[in-house]
Amino acid sequence: MRVIYPGSFDPITKGHLDIIKRIAPKSEKVYVAILNNSTKNYLFSLEERLELIRKSCEDIENIEVVYFDGLLVDFAKKLNCSIIIRGLRAVSDYEMEMQMALVNRSMYKDLETLFMVADGNYSYLSSSIVKEVASYGGDIEQYVPKCVAESLMKKLR
Amino acid sequence: MRVIYPGSFDPITKGHLDIIKRIAPKSEKVYVAILNNSTKNYLFSLEERLELIRKSCEDIENIEVVYFDGLLVDFAKKLNCSIIIRGLRAVSDYEMEMQMALVNRSMYKDLETLFMVADGNYSYLSSSIVKEVASYGGDIEQYVPKCVAESLMKKLR
Amino acid sequence: MRVIYPGSFDPITKGHLDIIKRIAPKSEKVYVAILNNSTKNYLFSLEERLELIRKSCEDIENIEVVYFDGLLVDFAKKLNCSIIIRGLRAVSDYEMEMQMALVNRSMYKDLETLFMVADGNYSYLSSSIVKEVASYGGDIEQYVPKCVAESLMKKLR
Amino acid sequence: MRVIYPGSFDPITKGHLDIIKRIAPKSEKVYVAILNNSTKNYLFSLEERLELIRKSCEDIENIEVVYFDGLLVDFAKKLNCSIIIRGLRAVSDYEMEMQMALVNRSMYKDLETLFMVADGNYSYLSSSIVKEVASYGGDIEQYVPKCVAESLMKKLR
Amino acid sequence: MRVIYPGSFDPITKGHLDIIKRIAPKSEKVYVAILNNSTKNYLFSLEERLELIRKSCEDIENIEVVYFDGLLVDFAKKLNCSIIIRGLRAVSDYEMEMQMALVNRSMYKDLETLFMVADGNYSYLSSSIVKEVASYGGDIEQYVPKCVAESLMKKLR
Amino acid sequence: MRVIYPGSFDPITKGHLDIIKRIAPKSEKVYVAILNNSTKNYLFSLEERLELIRKSCEDIENIEVVYFDGLLVDFAKKLNCSIIIRGLRAVSDYEMEMQMALVNRSMYKDLETLFMVADGNYSYLSSSIVKEVASYGGDIEQYVPKCVAESLMKKLR
Repeated sequence: MRVIYPGSFDPITKGHLDIIKRIAPKSEKVYVAILNNSTKNYLFSLEERLELIRKSCEDIENIEVVYFDGLLVDFAKKLNCSIIIRGLRAVSDYEMEMQMALVNRSMYKDLETLFMVADGNYSYLSSSIVKEVASYGGDIEQYVPKCVAESLMKKLR
Repeated sequence: MRVIYPGSFDPITKGHLDIIKRIAPKSEKVYVAILNNSTKNYLFSLEERLELIRKSCEDIENIEVVYFDGLLVDFAKKLNCSIIIRGLRAVSDYEMEMQMALVNRSMYKDLETLFMVADGNYSYLSSSIVKEVASYGGDIEQYVPKCVAESLMKKLR
Repeated sequence: MRVIYPGSFDPITKGHLDIIKRIAPKSEKVYVAILNNSTKNYLFSLEERLELIRKSCEDIENIEVVYFDGLLVDFAKKLNCSIIIRGLRAVSDYEMEMQMALVNRSMYKDLETLFMVADGNYSYLSSSIVKEVASYGGDIEQYVPKCVAESLMKKLR
Repeated sequence: MRVIYPGSFDPITKGHLDIIKRIAPKSEKVYVAILNNSTKNYLFSLEERLELIRKSCEDIENIEVVYFDGLLVDFAKKLNCSIIIRGLRAVSDYEMEMQMALVNRSMYKDLETLFMVADGNYSYLSSSIVKEVASYGGDIEQYVPKCVAESLMKKLR
Repeated sequence: MRVIYPGSFDPITKGHLDIIKRIAPKSEKVYVAILNNSTKNYLFSLEERLELIRKSCEDIENIEVVYFDGLLVDFAKKLNCSIIIRGLRAVSDYEMEMQMALVNRSMYKDLETLFMVADGNYSYLSSSIVKEVASYGGDIEQYVPKCVAESLMKKLR
Repeated sequence: MRVIYPGSFDPITKGHLDIIKRIAPKSEKVYVAILNNSTKNYLFSLEERLELIRKSCEDIENIEVVYFDGLLVDFAKKLNCSIIIRGLRAVSDYEMEMQMALVNRSMYKDLETLFMVADGNYSYLSSSIVKEVASYGGDIEQYVPKCVAESLMKKLR
């Protein structure tokens, strides 16, 4: 199967990486798809996010890092890909994700969202928390790949 | 019983309409009460929201579309109406709603909030999602009454 | 409106009573409907449960204590009553109740379930917990009407 | 991908069928795997459950109905299949499923559980509810395939 | 034990006070720690919040009102205090709190967060709701200490 | 502070042990209190459970393993101890625990329940799941202390 793993990845965390590494061996191809919503402010530019994901995933062969703006369903159609992968952490996550999955299916009947449970070690991890911890000078190497930690440090200095 | 069904209705969706159509036959009168909070930005003006609800509900006899700013409990007292109707979708909904119901009762002892479970087909639907889908050019006719779909399309063009 | 408030009431608690007292003034008639499932074991017999509810509600004029076995939807039809009232406590409650509400509507389109949020003081209360506390000799007068407390004490001696 | 869709299927419902029909086109092969736990009482025998699933799925080419007793991880290894499919309904579902997914992965590192959100129309449906409704003579044709409805009626007569 | 009870306290409510009064008798010392995030807008200045907490807690001997900016874990280390106390209300609360507790522990292994369940009467109470009710002229004396109610009224006039 | 950590411990898991090891350094004394409900069936006898906890905790100085039947509040009073420690895993856990905490406080005003969040690695772990996995011959050494694993193996052979 060919799957899309969408997200803002601002920046990519070890939680995202765990999902990618677990789904890649089950898939023919994994599109890691960066949402680049023009009305949102990102800490990392699209180019930076692309680069950090590529570096973090360089030992995984069957992935391709792509980006999109607009509706995920339109992007999925363009890639001719009808499976979305999402990681689940808490219950509040689950509800928002369930809602998005139902909306997406209501727009594109063949599109299925498959959910994977986050590893226990990453069940509390999010890009926002990483940025908050980093902004106060906390140690973030346990949460993100090394290249992301370095990049984040530079940015916040 | 005379009931108030409050909301922002920016714009009214088929989920709202489902609740109105289900509660109307059980009620003497349903006040569909548009919250018009002066500090919030709405996509549709108060007049537009009034008009869209009226059009969408024109075959329901015992409803009256009204609007208010301020505390719902004060508006309920003014209407001499002590029952609020709310639709429930997800768990996160439920908690916020439960909180509002308890706060409202703490301010007005006779005021009861009665909850109805959203129909399975609308359990994911919200005005925000409709606006987001529409903003990307997605098809929204399945989510909102026809007059709302047309109005939304014009607005976003 | 005429409403049904169904439950096992084994025995009736102050939580149940709070719901009954709050819905009665909004209703023409409240049927407090004891579920008497022949395959279940109750601590109190049907007669005892009927009697305890009657005593606990003797100052509420517009209620009638009734009982049923079988599907609630069939009983509702027989009473010619299309509104069910249920109290909600926790989230787990909510999900089971939501499920029952949807099932009931799928069997009887006009039947609506209206939910009320339990008072903060009774948000943890259930007949099972009362029976467990009583079985260990704990004080239960704060949880149940006086007549129930006495009856429960006798039974457990 | 080759996937396992495990369950008791006592009996199969339209909710199960919806998941099977949605995952089949994405998969090379779907093993519908009946859990036959020797310590549990089923309403339908293993043979009956096998037969009812086969009949209900006869127009889906790439499925195979199988059964197992014991740990799902052992059965997955035997089938040389490392993807489990599960449908999700409510939050309580989600937590138990998340727990099982983490336990299964802790026993078999390559085994991934992928979750699909139940269709809104089936979000309240379970084999238990179908059996309860049927036992009271309620109409169940909207919940289960026709062959199941007939079989259930015969059994309960 | 010496504990930290952190929060924005903008302003302190009877819900906060209930937690403080319940944990104080179990503790050697309670640090009520005001988070003063320089990027956030507070209705009450740091000085006002300090003063209102001091007045509200003047009959509790073993508390000290302090404030901090930055990471809570750094502040806890500075105070040489390794127990954080948090009150819990709803499920959504619980998840965010659980996440923060896990993040904090990941940064400071000895730091434990201990949670207390909010009293049933305060399970819906938050500083935000108090401010919203007050802004519409609602009665807030049941939600906050008297000195806070007066201060809030002055501010909103 | 002196705390009680109650449970059935049938048998003790690494999840329980994690809580004990984290709370012990914060406490003067930890009573690990085995609930021995005469109406329940345990896989391990009271003596076995006592022995397994003692062995698992032999390097923790300030704990004492005790047991009780009846109401936890009565046992807490007897030990002259007014703090209960409980670990939290999922949301469903949280609700039942919150309920028990509120009931316990309603019976003994000074009794406080303090909750700790289970470590991410043990968030899915329970004695029941360990027993189920073991019963099918699964490997359980990652879930329980070594002495428990051996004891469980013997019992199930």
